[in-house]
Amino acid sequence: MPSRKKKMISDHVITRLPAYLRVLNELAASDTERISSQGLGKIMGLTASQIRQDFSYFGTFGQQGYGYQVVALRNEIAKIMGLDRNYQAVLLGTGNIGQALLEHLDFSVSGVHIKAAFDVRRELIGTDIAGVPVLDAHDLMTYCQAEGVDIAINCVSAESAQRAAEHAVEAGIRAIWNFTNTVLTVPDHVVVENIFFSDSLQRLEYYLSDMLDSE
Amino acid sequence: MPSRKKKMISDHVITRLPAYLRVLNELAASDTERISSQGLGKIMGLTASQIRQDFSYFGTFGQQGYGYQVVALRNEIAKIMGLDRNYQAVLLGTGNIGQALLEHLDFSVSGVHIKAAFDVRRELIGTDIAGVPVLDAHDLMTYCQAEGVDIAINCVSAESAQRAAEHAVEAGIRAIWNFTNTVLTVPDHVVVENIFFSDSLQRLEYYLSDMLDSE
Repeated sequence: MPSRKKKMISDHVITRLPAYLRVLNELAASDTERISSQGLGKIMGLTASQIRQDFSYFGTFGQQGYGYQVVALRNEIAKIMGLDRNYQAVLLGTGNIGQALLEHLDFSVSGVHIKAAFDVRRELIGTDIAGVPVLDAHDLMTYCQAEGVDIAINCVSAESAQRAAEHAVEAGIRAIWNFTNTVLTVPDHVVVENIFFSDSLQRLEYYLSDMLDSE
Repeated sequence: MPSRKKKMISDHVITRLPAYLRVLNELAASDTERISSQGLGKIMGLTASQIRQDFSYFGTFGQQGYGYQVVALRNEIAKIMGLDRNYQAVLLGTGNIGQALLEHLDFSVSGVHIKAAFDVRRELIGTDIAGVPVLDAHDLMTYCQAEGVDIAINCVSAESAQRAAEHAVEAGIRAIWNFTNTVLTVPDHVVVENIFFSDSLQRLEYYLSDMLDSE
């Protein structure tokens, strides 16, 4: 069994785990039973030895010469990532981004359940978006304490971002998925994962410049 | 002068460059003239030696004992990333995500100009979103060839994602910023930068599980 000594796993490996999961899900869907580290490396754009090194953090999945069992490896990675814990989430701010996430993102792939969305706009409270009820933002604390919510998806405006994060933390939330393009200040016992759109766009510009320069 | 030998820079450093830029912009805004590698490291959550190592890829910015000049360093990083090239972009698909980007993202920070958005929905064609005209998707090729467009921001549905990417490539586009949660297949001369929402959510779950396990 892979150990749970997660602290020792480097951030670079953790960044690759969701990509492994995506590839393994596709392989499982196409009924591939086993894959070698060479085969997996080719799909992932990594060397076979990088693949073996990544997986060595979690114990042994593969058998020399037989490759990895696709479904077992996928389930083990999902477990290592905590996707089997069925976290409960709420979404704060039902503007365009919030709506897009509720309507188009398959949260079940990640084992996350969106219980409710919160907004301050009177005309939205009481409606639902893709089956998720929109509740009054003033009731966030009462709701979270009664329902046990782990994750807040912060989709409010940049101006309200820090305040919304503080409300969520006061309500006992332990993780914030941050879409506000703002750096949030939170206590040490709260995890923040940022989607910084500009960072991604700037990486694109870097690789584009690099390609154009080398022509 | 920093060299342009970009190929030698590791992806991990490139991933950090936008974060450096964000921090340096904030320092410049608060009139900080110089910062030491220790000071910058503290803000970035890195050691002073990691900072010095990252910047060593680009030549020397700092002077031993005097720290880095904030504005000069910021401008040099922006140049290295190609943000001074004023890339022209179009946005494909004006659903929730596309609208959110047009309305809320400050593209000027990254030196990108959004010239037009494209959609197939008759009722949207001819309108504008945050000052950006919405044009007929059938005119994409003609438009790009006439106007010289570098980047396509792919915000169409997952089902149309690959087809939209192929149209963009045929129209001469060299880079795709991909919001479709789909793996795109493109020729080697085209750069793709993905925003995979589920990958980010799964990282959040990993770090949350890790924190809860260590309590």
